[in-house]
Amino acid sequence: MANIRYITSGESHGQALTGIIEGLPSNLELSIEQIDNQLKRRQKGYGRGGRMKIESDKASVLSGLRWGKTIGSPLCLQIINKDWENWKQGMSIDSADIGSISPVTRARPGHADLSGALKYNQSDIRNILERSSARETAMRVALGAVARQFLSVFGVSIGSYIIRIGNAEIQSLDETLEELFKKAEQSEVRCPDLSATNRMKAAIDEAKEQGDTLGGTFVVFATGLPVGIGSHIQWDKKLDGRLAQAIMGIQAVKAVEFGIGSKAAELPGSQVMDEIFYDKDSGYYRKTNNAGGIEGGMTNGMPLIIRAVMKPIPTLRKPLNSVDIISKEAFKAAYERSDVCAVPACSVIAEAMTALVLADGFMEKFGGDSLEETVWNWKGYVEQVKVF
Amino acid sequence: MANIRYITSGESHGQALTGIIEGLPSNLELSIEQIDNQLKRRQKGYGRGGRMKIESDKASVLSGLRWGKTIGSPLCLQIINKDWENWKQGMSIDSADIGSISPVTRARPGHADLSGALKYNQSDIRNILERSSARETAMRVALGAVARQFLSVFGVSIGSYIIRIGNAEIQSLDETLEELFKKAEQSEVRCPDLSATNRMKAAIDEAKEQGDTLGGTFVVFATGLPVGIGSHIQWDKKLDGRLAQAIMGIQAVKAVEFGIGSKAAELPGSQVMDEIFYDKDSGYYRKTNNAGGIEGGMTNGMPLIIRAVMKPIPTLRKPLNSVDIISKEAFKAAYERSDVCAVPACSVIAEAMTALVLADGFMEKFGGDSLEETVWNWKGYVEQVKVF
Amino acid sequence: MANIRYITSGESHGQALTGIIEGLPSNLELSIEQIDNQLKRRQKGYGRGGRMKIESDKASVLSGLRWGKTIGSPLCLQIINKDWENWKQGMSIDSADIGSISPVTRARPGHADLSGALKYNQSDIRNILERSSARETAMRVALGAVARQFLSVFGVSIGSYIIRIGNAEIQSLDETLEELFKKAEQSEVRCPDLSATNRMKAAIDEAKEQGDTLGGTFVVFATGLPVGIGSHIQWDKKLDGRLAQAIMGIQAVKAVEFGIGSKAAELPGSQVMDEIFYDKDSGYYRKTNNAGGIEGGMTNGMPLIIRAVMKPIPTLRKPLNSVDIISKEAFKAAYERSDVCAVPACSVIAEAMTALVLADGFMEKFGGDSLEETVWNWKGYVEQVKVF
Amino acid sequence: MANIRYITSGESHGQALTGIIEGLPSNLELSIEQIDNQLKRRQKGYGRGGRMKIESDKASVLSGLRWGKTIGSPLCLQIINKDWENWKQGMSIDSADIGSISPVTRARPGHADLSGALKYNQSDIRNILERSSARETAMRVALGAVARQFLSVFGVSIGSYIIRIGNAEIQSLDETLEELFKKAEQSEVRCPDLSATNRMKAAIDEAKEQGDTLGGTFVVFATGLPVGIGSHIQWDKKLDGRLAQAIMGIQAVKAVEFGIGSKAAELPGSQVMDEIFYDKDSGYYRKTNNAGGIEGGMTNGMPLIIRAVMKPIPTLRKPLNSVDIISKEAFKAAYERSDVCAVPACSVIAEAMTALVLADGFMEKFGGDSLEETVWNWKGYVEQVKVF
Repeated sequence: MANIRYITSGESHGQALTGIIEGLPSNLELSIEQIDNQLKRRQKGYGRGGRMKIESDKASVLSGLRWGKTIGSPLCLQIINKDWENWKQGMSIDSADIGSISPVTRARPGHADLSGALKYNQSDIRNILERSSARETAMRVALGAVARQFLSVFGVSIGSYIIRIGNAEIQSLDETLEELFKKAEQSEVRCPDLSATNRMKAAIDEAKEQGDTLGGTFVVFATGLPVGIGSHIQWDKKLDGRLAQAIMGIQAVKAVEFGIGSKAAELPGSQVMDEIFYDKDSGYYRKTNNAGGIEGGMTNGMPLIIRAVMKPIPTLRKPLNSVDIISKEAFKAAYERSDVCAVPACSVIAEAMTALVLADGFMEKFGGDSLEETVWNWKGYVEQVKVF
Repeated sequence: MANIRYITSGESHGQALTGIIEGLPSNLELSIEQIDNQLKRRQKGYGRGGRMKIESDKASVLSGLRWGKTIGSPLCLQIINKDWENWKQGMSIDSADIGSISPVTRARPGHADLSGALKYNQSDIRNILERSSARETAMRVALGAVARQFLSVFGVSIGSYIIRIGNAEIQSLDETLEELFKKAEQSEVRCPDLSATNRMKAAIDEAKEQGDTLGGTFVVFATGLPVGIGSHIQWDKKLDGRLAQAIMGIQAVKAVEFGIGSKAAELPGSQVMDEIFYDKDSGYYRKTNNAGGIEGGMTNGMPLIIRAVMKPIPTLRKPLNSVDIISKEAFKAAYERSDVCAVPACSVIAEAMTALVLADGFMEKFGGDSLEETVWNWKGYVEQVKVF
Repeated sequence: MANIRYITSGESHGQALTGIIEGLPSNLELSIEQIDNQLKRRQKGYGRGGRMKIESDKASVLSGLRWGKTIGSPLCLQIINKDWENWKQGMSIDSADIGSISPVTRARPGHADLSGALKYNQSDIRNILERSSARETAMRVALGAVARQFLSVFGVSIGSYIIRIGNAEIQSLDETLEELFKKAEQSEVRCPDLSATNRMKAAIDEAKEQGDTLGGTFVVFATGLPVGIGSHIQWDKKLDGRLAQAIMGIQAVKAVEFGIGSKAAELPGSQVMDEIFYDKDSGYYRKTNNAGGIEGGMTNGMPLIIRAVMKPIPTLRKPLNSVDIISKEAFKAAYERSDVCAVPACSVIAEAMTALVLADGFMEKFGGDSLEETVWNWKGYVEQVKVF
Repeated sequence: MANIRYITSGESHGQALTGIIEGLPSNLELSIEQIDNQLKRRQKGYGRGGRMKIESDKASVLSGLRWGKTIGSPLCLQIINKDWENWKQGMSIDSADIGSISPVTRARPGHADLSGALKYNQSDIRNILERSSARETAMRVALGAVARQFLSVFGVSIGSYIIRIGNAEIQSLDETLEELFKKAEQSEVRCPDLSATNRMKAAIDEAKEQGDTLGGTFVVFATGLPVGIGSHIQWDKKLDGRLAQAIMGIQAVKAVEFGIGSKAAELPGSQVMDEIFYDKDSGYYRKTNNAGGIEGGMTNGMPLIIRAVMKPIPTLRKPLNSVDIISKEAFKAAYERSDVCAVPACSVIAEAMTALVLADGFMEKFGGDSLEETVWNWKGYVEQVKVF
């Protein structure tokens, strides 16, 4: 487990987000532009409030990369907070700045606010919300963009698209994953269907008007995976479990499914299993992918298909009942400026987390310290599977 | 992470399942009867085939327990295979027994069979299916029964009930979790509603007649949890992620949700967030629990509510297309004897996995090497939260 | 880290020692005889008391092995306590047996007794000493014997020999490691020098007469290692650190050194560094091995040389001052039957721990799920190094 | 394991060293000045070359700290390379800068150079040496300075002193650890004895003249530790093992010992064990500390005493035989500017690593998310031990 490990730090209005990732082979070419592109994708989406537009995140690589290639040592990525000037005192590390901004004492329902304040014994909720904020996921996206570049060497592509926002749902999907992805990239809500896109935007507009927020459902997929990433042999080596952790651990995600997911509860077994066929040229293959590319906790060679649900953003204009943690007085929580819908961003974050889990699974299976070595190992296995 | 760690071993028809769990405090009273009760619960359920009835699993504790109490050292649990006599050669460790039973070469769709054989380079699929079989979960249930006894010291209870099997779904649930659980325990399909129980049994009967199998949906819950188990501070410390991994890692589980789960994609934010109230006597409280007891990756003091979907059992009487991995010839997979539905068992396994994650979360937060110490620490925190 | 993980359980007089090891590739042939041989080596040695002779440990493999080969799933090893009949009540898991033997309340200096009783809040020291006893290392030796067989596929051999027991020290060592090992295996104290062997035995005899005990110093080595196991990139990936942990974690070990070890404090740099040479046929090579085969936290292709010191056995016939943890009264600790010297056993245990660390390092570097795959990967790397 | 985890990144001449540490409770006051003081201590020492004087490291805290106190989220520390301007191209991440400085192709004996180049498939050894350099330990010292401030809340102090440099050895030590430490802090070689200090400086002067380098031996100690940090129950929970890993993993350390260490190989058991006494006021106590504060893998309440050996710095003026990895030609490695002796620095780094292991052991035992909670838990345990 954890042949690739990574850890992130940073508060929403702090000086910088920082992430360290370790375990990638040397000699991997990394493009900063591709990292920044991913950061940009995370910031887009119809229904975002003001902050996203200001930000325009850029990652710097502070270590582990030299002259365009990894050198085996840990990569350190950093995203500077461009608004730091305005938070210098409020988020200062210096005790001299105590009280320079008022404490946050009103707990917002649906956030980490209350539980975090109680757990960490904080009377200023800012000390919790600064880290629990989804701002932190920018670094996960940056790290995921690194993992993604690693995986692309092996022909693995990762994408996503939105299928529901509030009551607006996409109808049917007859196209390939690549096509769906391409279309999603054109849509303001990352939805591959034009009519659904319009309905989703309308739903967002309506929610905005009512001071409300919306969640939704999205699909993350990965293609090009060899058979046998993950393992059946121990509860914590199962790839579906590891992916479920990574995606459920994204702020506001409340459901994760593989393949047909919940539908599997309704259909009889004969309609759920993906029958196996064989052809001399292509080897084993399936005509269906109800399993979403995972059987027995391992990839089975079909595309990985994950569906996840994001709840609506908890910070909304419509007042919600809550309590001040100091005075214990009830108040009506209401927020002026906020996003209405962040499902498109969430899907990009989920892509990143998927990339990180898959890269870890790759290194676990293939080992290697230089890209040449890992590729050699991978080729040997691909050949072994072919002639099996 | 992993203040409590555990690992299991054992093949379906091997000599024994073994599990080692470490990190529980000393001086915890453990009842073997309670472990065996959990094992019995796992074996029950309308729609199980022959084997379950034969088995009647019993756990022995081989270490870590003395005179009824834990002593701090690792607990070793073992479940002997009562049918071992019939598998002595077939599953022998001795190379002298090679060929004593025929290899399994026909890959079953929906199982680890094909991916596992390719990954581990096995021409006898038995070398995969023996470990990927859900038989292994008996040990997880036994270990979970230990975690459960630990948690009960702190007033934490864990239960589950079935809400859907195939097309038969429960309607509405007006009762407390305790009542639902009590009723579920009386039902042959672990469903708290009598009418739904009958419809589920009928669905199973019908599937059986058609040589088919059924999956379903169940709820796992935990009550009595203090606020603040898990953490928002790092992607892999979020409790929902850890629970999702543990439950998605159960054989055949294809979806995991918290609270209202997928519904959160449809409803506006104002209907999703659980508003916060305060009362001098009871402290902070909520009137709703749409979040399923988790906000910001931490328990929020409300009951933990997890919903999970199990796909139908992949081994069925109705023929499915597949391929022989040696001859590469197509065949129609069909199995005489098999379970039709194992959703009730799956819910019991999910309870066990939930208990293991929560016990780990407890030890992470409260520390302590003896139960007295852990209880002291917990009480201090409960008081701190109270006077906050 | 931890591509191979293992955990052990079991008390000294409990029913059985159990160990689970996971992460070895499939299709590895395992000989139980070789495991038992290692267990036998651990039990030998001039100066052992009665118990060692009774025991004659045998390992059973309960899972993960079929028809002579690993199948990828976790291996479970078990060593039954042959004296269990006499401890059935005393070490029973049943509260009905409380009080069937008297509690141990007299803390022995040099043992875990007092610290363990305080930490785990135990008034019967038996609840500590049963696990802290070096009996537990029998399972480590068994697991190490598995790792050793894995390593031997890659031409890696591990051995050890004693260089000091009490005041008796070996003089000079002009022979190859293989020869030293072969001779050590012939010596009752595992010392490759006959004269030193005799002096060591005499020292043991004398200590025995005086009711005292002796420690000593031993060397563990590994040959056939490729360059580049372990890594310089992070504090916890350095192989010397991992080996140091594994060996210092053996009961009674108080010092661990690599290569010339402490001598490196005295000599100038020009006499310490192993100069590098190159030859077309043999590639890079060294004429000295002061580093003990590790530079920068990685193997450098030279034999791994570890020196470790075991303190004398703390349980001795000569009385030592101590305290009864219940009455708080002083007493003179004195024990009738005990080993006088266990250094030869300790060296065998250290070999096992070395094998486990190296096997983990191998899997970390080479990956692979079947032995064929791991060997393919290893060959590719060996070739890469050759043509570098 | 790893309740506190940390990871570092950064190359010797890269832009910055970065470290993230996680798992410390909230509400811990942190002084940056104390971190910088530790960094300064690491840079001092008679016999250092030019670079150390230039540097004058300063740490910034980029996250996890607000208004002087931790907030529970990960701490990110950064040390900027003040010489970065001169390395901007040479260590650039941009492929446009390829070739802006010449590759290092001459492998230095005693360094990671050759093994690292082969392992990571690098033809420019700079890609290895930049990370394997002891420069990286500046971040470990910074992180250790955080751990140290945490520990000081519980009355734990950590210090060190040098007892040997080359042939100059300290004679006898009759003073308390606190006094030895105080005196060491006054000495240019961190040696508490004035005469030995002079001999050590003379030895360094002589080595310098001869173009050679020197290693040495130092003691790290910790006082104020409660009994029962670490555990006997599993090989990887033993505190001595964890400390040995942490210290052996420091660049150039070749030996680690606890208490009397190697002497334990020579003395009989009756002279090695620390007898146990009891006194109503002070509880259990010892008159000796041969064990170095650890029995059974746990602290026993006596000061922790670790002795470690650093080899001479491998980069020296006197020529050493080596090979160019590209041309394969032999050359004589000789370096103009270099440190002669870095043992004083190494002892400071070892203090830091000790602090990190102990802080992890504290959190493992005491748990807690806020300092108030951890202190409450600790006090409960201290009381429990007292009344035991």
